[in-house]
Amino acid sequence: MYAPRKLMFSVLGRCPWRHCHRRHSTAATKLSVREALVANVEEGTKNIKIQGWVRSIRSQKEVVFLHVNDGTSLESLQIVAEPGLQSRISFGSSVEISGELVKSPSKKQNVELKAEEIRVTGDCDSKEFPFKIKEHHPPEYVRQFPHLRCRTNTFGSLLRVRSEATSAIHQFFKSNGYVHIHTPIITSNDCEGAGELFQVEASNRDGTQEDGGFFGVPAFLTVSGQLHLEIISGGFRKAFTFGPTFRAENSQSRRHLAEFYMVEAEVSFTESLEDIMQVMENLFKDTTTTLLSNCPDEMNFFFKHVSPGQQGSFLTDCSFSLHRMSYTEALEILKKAATSFQHKTEWGCDLQTEHEKYLVRHCGDLPVFVINYPYDLKPFYARDNEDGPQRTVAAVDLLVPGIGELFGGSLREERPHILQSRLDTLGLADTYQWYLDLRRFGSVPHGGFGMGFERYLQCILGIDNIKDVTPFPRFPYSCLL
Amino acid sequence: MYAPRKLMFSVLGRCPWRHCHRRHSTAATKLSVREALVANVEEGTKNIKIQGWVRSIRSQKEVVFLHVNDGTSLESLQIVAEPGLQSRISFGSSVEISGELVKSPSKKQNVELKAEEIRVTGDCDSKEFPFKIKEHHPPEYVRQFPHLRCRTNTFGSLLRVRSEATSAIHQFFKSNGYVHIHTPIITSNDCEGAGELFQVEASNRDGTQEDGGFFGVPAFLTVSGQLHLEIISGGFRKAFTFGPTFRAENSQSRRHLAEFYMVEAEVSFTESLEDIMQVMENLFKDTTTTLLSNCPDEMNFFFKHVSPGQQGSFLTDCSFSLHRMSYTEALEILKKAATSFQHKTEWGCDLQTEHEKYLVRHCGDLPVFVINYPYDLKPFYARDNEDGPQRTVAAVDLLVPGIGELFGGSLREERPHILQSRLDTLGLADTYQWYLDLRRFGSVPHGGFGMGFERYLQCILGIDNIKDVTPFPRFPYSCLL
Repeated sequence: MYAPRKLMFSVLGRCPWRHCHRRHSTAATKLSVREALVANVEEGTKNIKIQGWVRSIRSQKEVVFLHVNDGTSLESLQIVAEPGLQSRISFGSSVEISGELVKSPSKKQNVELKAEEIRVTGDCDSKEFPFKIKEHHPPEYVRQFPHLRCRTNTFGSLLRVRSEATSAIHQFFKSNGYVHIHTPIITSNDCEGAGELFQVEASNRDGTQEDGGFFGVPAFLTVSGQLHLEIISGGFRKAFTFGPTFRAENSQSRRHLAEFYMVEAEVSFTESLEDIMQVMENLFKDTTTTLLSNCPDEMNFFFKHVSPGQQGSFLTDCSFSLHRMSYTEALEILKKAATSFQHKTEWGCDLQTEHEKYLVRHCGDLPVFVINYPYDLKPFYARDNEDGPQRTVAAVDLLVPGIGELFGGSLREERPHILQSRLDTLGLADTYQWYLDLRRFGSVPHGGFGMGFERYLQCILGIDNIKDVTPFPRFPYSCLL
Repeated sequence: MYAPRKLMFSVLGRCPWRHCHRRHSTAATKLSVREALVANVEEGTKNIKIQGWVRSIRSQKEVVFLHVNDGTSLESLQIVAEPGLQSRISFGSSVEISGELVKSPSKKQNVELKAEEIRVTGDCDSKEFPFKIKEHHPPEYVRQFPHLRCRTNTFGSLLRVRSEATSAIHQFFKSNGYVHIHTPIITSNDCEGAGELFQVEASNRDGTQEDGGFFGVPAFLTVSGQLHLEIISGGFRKAFTFGPTFRAENSQSRRHLAEFYMVEAEVSFTESLEDIMQVMENLFKDTTTTLLSNCPDEMNFFFKHVSPGQQGSFLTDCSFSLHRMSYTEALEILKKAATSFQHKTEWGCDLQTEHEKYLVRHCGDLPVFVINYPYDLKPFYARDNEDGPQRTVAAVDLLVPGIGELFGGSLREERPHILQSRLDTLGLADTYQWYLDLRRFGSVPHGGFGMGFERYLQCILGIDNIKDVTPFPRFPYSCLL
């Protein structure tokens, strides 16, 4: 959330809109709800104009109380009006209200607006409007109205937190010297042979294209910007990307979307996996600290109403150190567990969500790094640790409470001969000739990670379903609007 | 570009990496090239380590001069070494160099590193490396090597400017109270029936999906986030998005890409088109001012080497006011022009690039707003001015030197009955029922705009071809990497 302007009401005579060129001799001073809520009412606050949507109406014999919200804050502004002032107001309608901002006699709010004029900008038929006054609507219901759900307290708060988190992440990387890169969305690189790809083609082939389609080659939606970031790492110390990624996974889980956002970073001249883990930890903690400080109302709203219990957890104090364990240690812990797991816990098996959640609980419900995974579990680019028969790669996952895997990262194989031999074995040397080139021309040790942005929001806000942390969720059989 | 840490060398004894937990008793202090270039060498700068890629080598009898760059700045750091110190160095190889940072006796640079140890991290076979030392490679040549072009001065500078512009745009909206929204990339909304769409489908249909495909409906890559931002404008005063958009246009022009970035904003409770134009103007000027102040070296590099003449132009002084003219006035200017145009200049015809460029020249090679376009030229959502037989809508384009249209915006039709009747006429009322809903439930006057980010970069840097302002350009028959 942006810092509200601390208003000096002595200067409110002139238009507060910096670039406004209009005549304002008799005009009211427009304030956002957020600005009004922190205004200093001691210093004269007549002729104030507020615009927004009506969130509640309470009529008494002598007076009508309205709450008006304009998306700038969780809290609405209380309006006090005479009953006859405006009769068309209903829940959901948009209004422009002028009057005097005064100290509120109630303890529930600091200020309220004594309405002198109320203009209804847009009516709202409360019977047709899918959200009802004073009713709590469960998220499954709200989700059916993607074009209206930003009007609810919960989803409005989510959008403000998401916006603030986006900004905090950009700021984190900028202040740490990373260059921001727009890695491509459409790619001819069917990364890692993942299989679960979306293919892209011009919908109206106009006959002038040849058989290869619009691009002349099969083209897909990206599943990760990593390989493209590695290109940039061939000339830049530090690079990051924060954009949409896609999986055509036929999953209706609470943790998967067909379209989601990834934060990915790549660091050159690394000395060990620790360099990467430190960036992961700092990103997680700095972003969370920023949110706690910049969106306290929204965060508390989620802690209180959406995920009670979350507030006392690791999130409110980011001073803890993150645990670290090797994959091999993790397997030992899982084998000793009293719990019985659905999936195998043999060395060489991938960690499943049930395992990840167990490991997090085992560490006192705190995030934990698991490092050095079996060679065969990780993609070709992970750096070989060359550590004997139980051979591992320098890969790391960060597991967090409630979610499981939140970050995945690794050192990348920068040694040309080892990479060449792995790609030869996999039959991929021709496809990745350009990737081998990066090792032929001034290779450097490097590594990086990706963080699922929606999972991060789920984790810190305690939101159960990933569909409720993104404005327009896409998943199998659903692409609304 | 991030602000380089102003290093106090009195504290250089401890590790400058804030979160470094490693033993550093005898370790050198790592600096980025950017940090080294602004270091205060008066205060003791021994045992400094630099990492990067060799950009030039000049051997003399007694001494070898290297220039090392690590992507943090346009300027490289000069290294002075004894000839025998390291023989494997070649143009393009990656190196780690330790030594003492000293004041340079030459006027060409402030500081240089007296090398004590040089380690080659990765060799580079200069014969195979497509870029040659001291050679200027034209952009068409460099473009053939998308995996290596970030190593050139020009493209490295472009990436830094692009990153800084991205950051400046986010910052502009944040500090002006806009909420950032990730509008969807995949959409079922074939916006404006545009025709030139990319369609998306799961590449490996696994048999469990029904006939409608992965999403159950035809799904496309977005051409604009506007309609989705308008949804948010139903509950938020100000919203913006900055993401990829797509056009399957079979064009090889210097101004079109199949995948490009758009900055889009939407403002509620507008009073006139002027409100929107003011945001457009502020965005353009603030971003440009930030770039001039944060990337002076890169900007001067482009002004000097890529687009001589640009430096003296409107960009270096953002204090000018933007011209405003109506479409009707624009047509009168075009009709009086001595130039003959390829396309018609009758009232009702769309402005073509040749017209746009003429109008910019007519205004003294300064950006100019053209407002109030004919009703039939603009999409259904543009607000009807209801101004008589030559009926217009409240739409605006900002035309800029060298490019033509850079921004397009409009007030949106917020009046339910007028919108309904227009959609009925177009046969689109069913498709846009959700959009009509926004007008049924608390409609507000609002408007917004979109700016092509790549065109903005072309405009301010004077870069002729749009393929040279994006790291991985996508266009017909080309989707490299």
